[in-house]
Amino acid sequence: MSGEIIIALDAMGGDSAPAMVVDGMSIAHVRYPDARFILFGDQGLLNPLLGPAVAGYCEVRHTDKVVSADDKPSQALRKGVRTSMRLAIDAVRNGEASGVVSAGNTGALMAMSKFSLRTLPGIYRPAIASNIPTMRGESVMLDLGANIQCDEQTLVQFAVMGADFARTVLGRVRPLVGLLNVGEEELKGNDTVRGAHEILRQMGGASFDYHGFVEGNDITQGTVDVIVTDGFTGNVALKTAEGTARLIGEFMRSAFRSSWMSRLGYLLARRGMTALRQRMDMSNYNGGVFLGLNGIAVKSHGGADANGFASAIGIAIDMVRDNMIGKIRSDFESFDTDALMPPKAAAGGSA
Amino acid sequence: MSGEIIIALDAMGGDSAPAMVVDGMSIAHVRYPDARFILFGDQGLLNPLLGPAVAGYCEVRHTDKVVSADDKPSQALRKGVRTSMRLAIDAVRNGEASGVVSAGNTGALMAMSKFSLRTLPGIYRPAIASNIPTMRGESVMLDLGANIQCDEQTLVQFAVMGADFARTVLGRVRPLVGLLNVGEEELKGNDTVRGAHEILRQMGGASFDYHGFVEGNDITQGTVDVIVTDGFTGNVALKTAEGTARLIGEFMRSAFRSSWMSRLGYLLARRGMTALRQRMDMSNYNGGVFLGLNGIAVKSHGGADANGFASAIGIAIDMVRDNMIGKIRSDFESFDTDALMPPKAAAGGSA
Repeated sequence: MSGEIIIALDAMGGDSAPAMVVDGMSIAHVRYPDARFILFGDQGLLNPLLGPAVAGYCEVRHTDKVVSADDKPSQALRKGVRTSMRLAIDAVRNGEASGVVSAGNTGALMAMSKFSLRTLPGIYRPAIASNIPTMRGESVMLDLGANIQCDEQTLVQFAVMGADFARTVLGRVRPLVGLLNVGEEELKGNDTVRGAHEILRQMGGASFDYHGFVEGNDITQGTVDVIVTDGFTGNVALKTAEGTARLIGEFMRSAFRSSWMSRLGYLLARRGMTALRQRMDMSNYNGGVFLGLNGIAVKSHGGADANGFASAIGIAIDMVRDNMIGKIRSDFESFDTDALMPPKAAAGGSA
Repeated sequence: MSGEIIIALDAMGGDSAPAMVVDGMSIAHVRYPDARFILFGDQGLLNPLLGPAVAGYCEVRHTDKVVSADDKPSQALRKGVRTSMRLAIDAVRNGEASGVVSAGNTGALMAMSKFSLRTLPGIYRPAIASNIPTMRGESVMLDLGANIQCDEQTLVQFAVMGADFARTVLGRVRPLVGLLNVGEEELKGNDTVRGAHEILRQMGGASFDYHGFVEGNDITQGTVDVIVTDGFTGNVALKTAEGTARLIGEFMRSAFRSSWMSRLGYLLARRGMTALRQRMDMSNYNGGVFLGLNGIAVKSHGGADANGFASAIGIAIDMVRDNMIGKIRSDFESFDTDALMPPKAAAGGSA
């Protein structure tokens, strides 16, 4: 396995699949010339898209079964092992590939990945994590929607896995971890958040530093490297940030269109504005990583373009190179599970 | 009462109080020449700030007791009736003023307002609401932090009160109401959100239209007029949006500074950019309104400047003019409380 990295791609997932997947693979090939790919999908649709040059780094495995965007996870599981998504996941389980990337239905991908790859020993629930832009560079946030309701032990596990992910994608040796909460002193969150806070505060031997509570505005401020929250709050926060960026982009367009002077100003500032657009471009931050599974699975945004899909492939490759699964596994093997139990004295304390 | 509007102001609340409060009052006076104000705070600090012109529309009531930003609600309540915040609230209860505005400690303001003004008959819990900028103009969101955990009946009451508020501040006759949730079909929120959804779907006779679930990106999209959520999620979403706006503002500044051409472009586009800054300026949307109380109380952002504080005063005045309390009271008097009980058949349905 060492040296060569093989990534399984669900060619049929995403709004613009399979063309977007093939184009994304080509971009990723330029960035990672050593990586090879297995494309799972409809040969009849894929072959016309694949030039002769791809033969050196890509292999097609035919199937005409697909998971649709509307399929519930249970439906997707019933459709069985012949869908492009499931075959791509199984390639990781079988050891043919080191990671899988799909832009398809998130719930189906999570359900199938859990079923096929299984969670790592000691891990209660897998989470979806992603890196996000901040004032100081990038941070990592999880969970982004896999677990709507989380207990305090689950949030603590997310902190451990998120720190491992931050080490790989941000290169931080001892990431700083924060727990998302509301700001008002007297309203400091619900019992779950307070419970997780107590455990993290008292947990010894962790390979990260615990900062304490952070608020919504800390996410983009870059106050911490890892923002831990439940899947409901994380999903809402991420989509709120995306929506706000879109709103401001729209405000900017109308500001530049407001007069001929503004239009001229835009032309002069164009290089800076192009750089700005790239920094605001969410496709650079595309790739929701499933953490806690016995294999690497990355979810690309369904509406991603080829560049975004290539970013998601890049994250999968980085995780393989960094032996992310091995790191999480060893973190949880050496993990003092007693540390996840709320300390008696603190748990009985006043609110 | 008719004709003249008197607003009680907590002169000592907020990072830049009392100067910011006095300046905000002066701005509000220009906008609302008929309104009068009672300023509660330290006369020794206030008198030097007040010119002779204010005598016609403002009266000072001295107290040297203040609620500090760090006081817990319970501490603030114990400090008793002589704090500037509490005196301002009590002026509403006594009928001396029609509304109160404070930029002080949110938790203390909510606790004291609940204690002094009481909730309206039939209302379980008051909520904090605010209007926010969207692609289509403005929407209203609640709860923004008063209630960390909400049951489904409470969320339904927020929908009713939020619609009343939207009628006043947005001028919509039949506001469109949405329930904030995560997007994935199969992960459609927790039991509480699903329960509230069922009640709202089947509720007859409401003075608003129910859209269904919305996601984080719908907030700024303007998909609905009223976004209903619990105080934890609402607080995180609002602060995430503020943080994202600040991040993009920072990106823009560095883009315009990146070359002399960009700087020149900025100068030419300056008028458009100034308009953009104003649209992005959160002080235009300052004013968290406490809904469900037997009196009008508006929380200004603690870091607000005079313009922001004047916006908060303006919201209080609009609510008085529109007889918001009377509207909410009559909504809940005529309210079929049975409608808040989850319908039996639907409650037993599959997830």
